Amino acid sequence: MSVYFEKVTVLGVGLLGASIARAMKARAMCGSVTGYGRSIRNLEEAVSLGIIDEFRTSAEQACEEADLVVLSSPPAVFNSLVSSVKNSLKSGALVTDVGSVKGSMVSEIESLMPSGAHYVGSHPIAGSEKSGIADSNADLFDSALCIVTPTAKTDKDALKKITGLWVGVGAVVEIMDPFRHDEVYAAVSHFPHLLAYELVNTVAEADPGHLKYAGQGFRDTTRIAMSSPELWRDICMLNSEELIKLIAVFRKRLDSMEERLRNKEAGRIEAEFIKAAGVRKSMNPASRSHHGE
Amino acid sequence: MSVYFEKVTVLGVGLLGASIARAMKARAMCGSVTGYGRSIRNLEEAVSLGIIDEFRTSAEQACEEADLVVLSSPPAVFNSLVSSVKNSLKSGALVTDVGSVKGSMVSEIESLMPSGAHYVGSHPIAGSEKSGIADSNADLFDSALCIVTPTAKTDKDALKKITGLWVGVGAVVEIMDPFRHDEVYAAVSHFPHLLAYELVNTVAEADPGHLKYAGQGFRDTTRIAMSSPELWRDICMLNSEELIKLIAVFRKRLDSMEERLRNKEAGRIEAEFIKAAGVRKSMNPASRSHHGE
Repeated sequence: MSVYFEKVTVLGVGLLGASIARAMKARAMCGSVTGYGRSIRNLEEAVSLGIIDEFRTSAEQACEEADLVVLSSPPAVFNSLVSSVKNSLKSGALVTDVGSVKGSMVSEIESLMPSGAHYVGSHPIAGSEKSGIADSNADLFDSALCIVTPTAKTDKDALKKITGLWVGVGAVVEIMDPFRHDEVYAAVSHFPHLLAYELVNTVAEADPGHLKYAGQGFRDTTRIAMSSPELWRDICMLNSEELIKLIAVFRKRLDSMEERLRNKEAGRIEAEFIKAAGVRKSMNPASRSHHGE
Repeated sequence: MSVYFEKVTVLGVGLLGASIARAMKARAMCGSVTGYGRSIRNLEEAVSLGIIDEFRTSAEQACEEADLVVLSSPPAVFNSLVSSVKNSLKSGALVTDVGSVKGSMVSEIESLMPSGAHYVGSHPIAGSEKSGIADSNADLFDSALCIVTPTAKTDKDALKKITGLWVGVGAVVEIMDPFRHDEVYAAVSHFPHLLAYELVNTVAEADPGHLKYAGQGFRDTTRIAMSSPELWRDICMLNSEELIKLIAVFRKRLDSMEERLRNKEAGRIEAEFIKAAGVRKSMNPASRSHHGE
């Protein structure tokens, strides 16, 4: 399916916003791209690199005449951004986002849409611990998984077009309920980020001098602790309920492990490790369609 | 400094034992290598691959006439292995190990040495989640860090020779107190392994179906959960005291994080993430001398 949007507006020109702009331009999927963001300098750089064609210093102005609006700012401001631009949206405008949290946000944004404009939530599983336009590229979504999260109210034609957008930039689309999405990604992404941040802080708290002895294992385990603190603060706040559930499961496991260490229950410790190693090995090799975070 | 051992015995022919044999042979640092292990099939394969020259089915016999004995079995059996071979050690024999835990084990093994034989503990930071001879190679220790852990009683000449052994196979040697070693490696290696195993089990417990959505972040964070359950059981048991201390620090941090999530304290959550990201970024780029785990 081929989709084309004459005027695309990217609200937030970071790694994902810049990559979607580049990906659409590279594939002739749009006429022009307008950017909006907090940093004029970043927007100017994006124009000079040819990532966007122009920018506006007001989100409302940036969305006037837009055929497609992509929310790619920190996800905590999606709602307020949409509230401020909704009166600029023309009839037929489509809105999507690239946020890592969906849940109740999807129906909230949906309910803000003016007549004739439609929102469909998206979560392309792409990107990394990097966060700026310098690392953006036109092929970021190539073979990446993209979760699209319609609701019972989602316009069927809008869903088709947003699916077409992601397929067009090379992604593999999977449809998922917004709340199921948050449960899944809390487990495989949000909670692991929380653990990685806390592991680094735990070691630094124990003795910062330890860190110079860290090998590749520690480096790999904590690579995602280099991710944008602002973005992950937002994700954790928006998906706090699922995170709190996982913390409870994890804490119980950690308490059991401590008991086993105290009681020298080698066999039971090994049994847990065997279980984990088996599960983890069954995930290999890494699929190209899951190469992002 | 050039060291040469006429007869080398490797007790445990796995990734590390096979790699030390290969590394010494490749650099003409030994006359012959005798292997001992639990699996005859593995020993036969090691002979056919030229990794070892011969093997014995008794550890005592394998150590007769040895100039250098390398303990490279699972670390939990180092003590009993040394107890069973000590009467076979000739005067002048040197014993070292490649274990990830030192602490009290070092003086325990030291006290088992017969007159004229000397033990010096080593921990080459090499290897990965792999554990068999198939992944062994002669350059595994090239530019790797190797911690050598003498005590007040360590024979100076033996220390020089064991240091020479590791420098000879390409490692960068650092001398460290055995207990300090365990504190450091609990933080940067043992506890991260425990967390990785528990993270995988937590996600599987929440819903095994989640795992197919895991991206590169989850894969990297849990790569070390594919490590040998038997080896890591031993390491965790042997270093349980340091692990229990770190679990306490970590649990307290996780409890605080949960409170912050419940109370929607976005600023304090971000502050923790900023701290961790800063610490983690300050560790880059990975040094070649710390490429193992």
